[in-house]
Amino acid sequence: MTDRTDVLIYDTTLRDGTQGEKINFSAEEKVRIAQRLDEMGFHYIEGGWPGSNPKDMRFFELGKHIPFKNARLTAFGSTRRPNIKVENCANIQTLLAAETPAVTIFGKSWDLHVTDILTIPLEENLAMIHESIAYLKANGKEVIYDAEHFFDGYKKNRFYALQTIETAWKAGADFIVLCDTNGGTIPHELTVIVEYVRSFLPDAPLGIHVHNDGDLAVANSIAAVSAGATMVQGTINGYGERCGNADLIPIIANLQLKMNRWCLPDNSIRQLTNLSYYISDVANIPPQNSRPFVGRSAFTHKGGVHVSAILKNPAAYEHIRPELVGNEQRVLVSDLSGKSNIEYKARELGIDLGTEDAISTLIVQKIKIMEDEGYQFDAADGSLSLLIKKITGEFKEPFVLECFHVINAKTKNNPSLSQATIKIVVGNEEELTAAEGNGPVNALDNALRKALVKFYPQISEVHLVDFKVRTLEGADGTAAKVRVLLDSKDNEDVWSTIGVSTNVIEASWHALVDSIQYKLCKDKINKHHVGE
Amino acid sequence: MTDRTDVLIYDTTLRDGTQGEKINFSAEEKVRIAQRLDEMGFHYIEGGWPGSNPKDMRFFELGKHIPFKNARLTAFGSTRRPNIKVENCANIQTLLAAETPAVTIFGKSWDLHVTDILTIPLEENLAMIHESIAYLKANGKEVIYDAEHFFDGYKKNRFYALQTIETAWKAGADFIVLCDTNGGTIPHELTVIVEYVRSFLPDAPLGIHVHNDGDLAVANSIAAVSAGATMVQGTINGYGERCGNADLIPIIANLQLKMNRWCLPDNSIRQLTNLSYYISDVANIPPQNSRPFVGRSAFTHKGGVHVSAILKNPAAYEHIRPELVGNEQRVLVSDLSGKSNIEYKARELGIDLGTEDAISTLIVQKIKIMEDEGYQFDAADGSLSLLIKKITGEFKEPFVLECFHVINAKTKNNPSLSQATIKIVVGNEEELTAAEGNGPVNALDNALRKALVKFYPQISEVHLVDFKVRTLEGADGTAAKVRVLLDSKDNEDVWSTIGVSTNVIEASWHALVDSIQYKLCKDKINKHHVGE
Repeated sequence: MTDRTDVLIYDTTLRDGTQGEKINFSAEEKVRIAQRLDEMGFHYIEGGWPGSNPKDMRFFELGKHIPFKNARLTAFGSTRRPNIKVENCANIQTLLAAETPAVTIFGKSWDLHVTDILTIPLEENLAMIHESIAYLKANGKEVIYDAEHFFDGYKKNRFYALQTIETAWKAGADFIVLCDTNGGTIPHELTVIVEYVRSFLPDAPLGIHVHNDGDLAVANSIAAVSAGATMVQGTINGYGERCGNADLIPIIANLQLKMNRWCLPDNSIRQLTNLSYYISDVANIPPQNSRPFVGRSAFTHKGGVHVSAILKNPAAYEHIRPELVGNEQRVLVSDLSGKSNIEYKARELGIDLGTEDAISTLIVQKIKIMEDEGYQFDAADGSLSLLIKKITGEFKEPFVLECFHVINAKTKNNPSLSQATIKIVVGNEEELTAAEGNGPVNALDNALRKALVKFYPQISEVHLVDFKVRTLEGADGTAAKVRVLLDSKDNEDVWSTIGVSTNVIEASWHALVDSIQYKLCKDKINKHHVGE
Repeated sequence: MTDRTDVLIYDTTLRDGTQGEKINFSAEEKVRIAQRLDEMGFHYIEGGWPGSNPKDMRFFELGKHIPFKNARLTAFGSTRRPNIKVENCANIQTLLAAETPAVTIFGKSWDLHVTDILTIPLEENLAMIHESIAYLKANGKEVIYDAEHFFDGYKKNRFYALQTIETAWKAGADFIVLCDTNGGTIPHELTVIVEYVRSFLPDAPLGIHVHNDGDLAVANSIAAVSAGATMVQGTINGYGERCGNADLIPIIANLQLKMNRWCLPDNSIRQLTNLSYYISDVANIPPQNSRPFVGRSAFTHKGGVHVSAILKNPAAYEHIRPELVGNEQRVLVSDLSGKSNIEYKARELGIDLGTEDAISTLIVQKIKIMEDEGYQFDAADGSLSLLIKKITGEFKEPFVLECFHVINAKTKNNPSLSQATIKIVVGNEEELTAAEGNGPVNALDNALRKALVKFYPQISEVHLVDFKVRTLEGADGTAAKVRVLLDSKDNEDVWSTIGVSTNVIEASWHALVDSIQYKLCKDKINKHHVGE
């Protein structure tokens, strides 16, 4: 059952997704995303346009060493340039040099683009399509042909648009992908056109690639599948140029959970929420709460009528069970749900809250106050565990801060210099020290470690693996609150800590201290350290 | 032509929209929104649920004095409570007390809700529907009947669902509105059901009210119109519970501009972009750039291929002319873009690059190097314009930095204190000053302004409206690079600037300086300032 695949999922987050405003991935980030999609069973991953920029070229170099388990990596490019031989076309040669099993090339379907933009005869465009595909096939590639602007072309000059895809099919393309490049097609028009193509090229596997300019990309994608397409191209979270590409997450969820068209293994469907957050984290685009299926508000109930109804029967106001896509029900203004979460969390962290209800209530209250200030404990397990231990009395401070000073100095156009001094107390001993860094937070981090390491040598095992700063909602400019998230690791574990303040150094300090305290707590050393 | 109306637009931003997380309007804000919608020719405005809270009650008090030109105001509520007489139902009486020309009541269509949630016999629900509508009609109201959960009800027990709306129609309802309350219906299912209802109640005017849980609300709304509905309910920007209500903006634009179904006067369609910003302003929800039709990115082009094409013919990559909905074309510059983007941008910024190709090439090279270091010019118009002016020689430094020091001090558990000193030179004059702030960047910002304002008083017009910090490639912990993005505004414009460094203060400094320089450049003051 889980092996069944009705629709092939083709992800272009790494290529078309990066056309979106403010979306940028490094080659290394692209590798991590590709591996994640591969693990989840995505069928095709379009890695980039190797001919267009050095970063994509580098990704394909790295890509040669990724052991894909499920996905086929594909390199994207255009048909050969006009009026040259295909073997002399640098773009086509770069596609081969990417050494991917599959190659995706796009060609023009709309006569306007051929005559007015490329300014070449309509016949030359057909030759470009034919020769490019035939050449790539002769070089052993699986070839996916993206018929750019197919729907607009069909509406303006149906005969020519059909001629272009017939040419591609006869040249040996493995898939004919119909693109709504401008994103303005209405579902009922699209359905009629896909059905026509289905009968026009009855043996060609069809794909669909649409944009969201009419807010109809998900509807158009599933309409195309109903009309016979067996491949859907899109991006995670719908990232992409203008209003974005079709969002693969609701497409997969609708197809598999509502329309009984299988795309991914069951287990992968349950990771869709995680995947959405993961990609928005890497892209550093705040996740959209109202995102269908996977948003934080997607199964959140506010109105009293709705809340009492879902307590009787969740189906009353939920279109699917949230856990099917890895999401969860939330009820706003409810201490009950809060407490059971805390008890669940404490159990998970191995903390015994006892049978007393009062402690859970206290923790819930504290968390609510702090979340109101901008803390976000679902992203900071380490800080949450410390908070619970502080309230239950299981935690003892491993050190006390006397004071710190961080100085950042800049002269003319030289880079800034950052230094920090710090004075801490451990037991009866004081330690005063100083350190430099390549920024004020790094200097403070270095000074804190330098001061502590003689008391707690195991601190040298702690490495900071990620440091994220985000400004919180607010029109206060440089006076706005920031949230700092820190990922730390030692030889065994990874943990996340958090700090919130209008002052980035202060926020970082809290996250740093939590990270060190978590480490010491974890090693149970703070109970036996020198001087106590 | 502009008097023609095929589809009545029913706005429920003020009622269902406020069920959305973080959406709250005061009664006065509701009045302003209602007036704006009325001016644009919306047909119905649902003002609130007077029975549910005092704020809505107050709105209807105020509403009695609004001289509506086009819209009919409607009050929302449920059918009478079970097992009481309609004239004794407080909820129904509050609806009358709201003194609106129209009243909207919702009733249950899904047998599950009747038997499991309300726990009453199916017949009693029919009686509640009949008596409530008949009573409101007898009191002279136009009655809009919202058949809650109609599609889910139809799928589970078609006979009963149809019986409920037949009851409503026979009781005298003026509109039968089919609701996809849980938002999970697929367009092709919905089409079949609406068509069936159309033939079942051939004389009843039908409406549609859907939610966006499957990312299909816009598609479902226009599908319902194709299947015979003549009223569409929704909210501006799709605000609403969970994943939101159907967004009226793309619905109106698709119906009127693509499907030739008239909703609003031509002139109102051109105000849709403004309306979207206006509502997000009042709701204090940041506008979503990728929003179809009206978002800031909706007609924004990034890729070089696309840009060179739209310069030849905008239809090449735009589904409609942006000015039809009051939006505009934008071109971004990034490492994906070529020379044509730069030339477009320069023209837009009023910079003459001359006929020399060399300067565009130089700018593109510089941008590619800086983007490789982490700069991102598509998000920083202001910095880009300065960069171009620096390369073309049009820019003169309005001031020179001698040095700055930023000190951040913390003692025990007290909050950090931040102070900055700065020395700048303008012409032949030096200025040394100091300032505090609620964080190091804010202190530096304050010091810089304090130093400059005596030379450039117009700096006091500049306000920072957004400050974003993100860590780039975070594997280096606190030593990682950060990117700072700053949005500034004066009385006329908004501009964005950027800085990148491993040091957050240094990165912020660059973004701050660019912001100030942009302002001075824009006002053309830097050429004539004191001392030159």
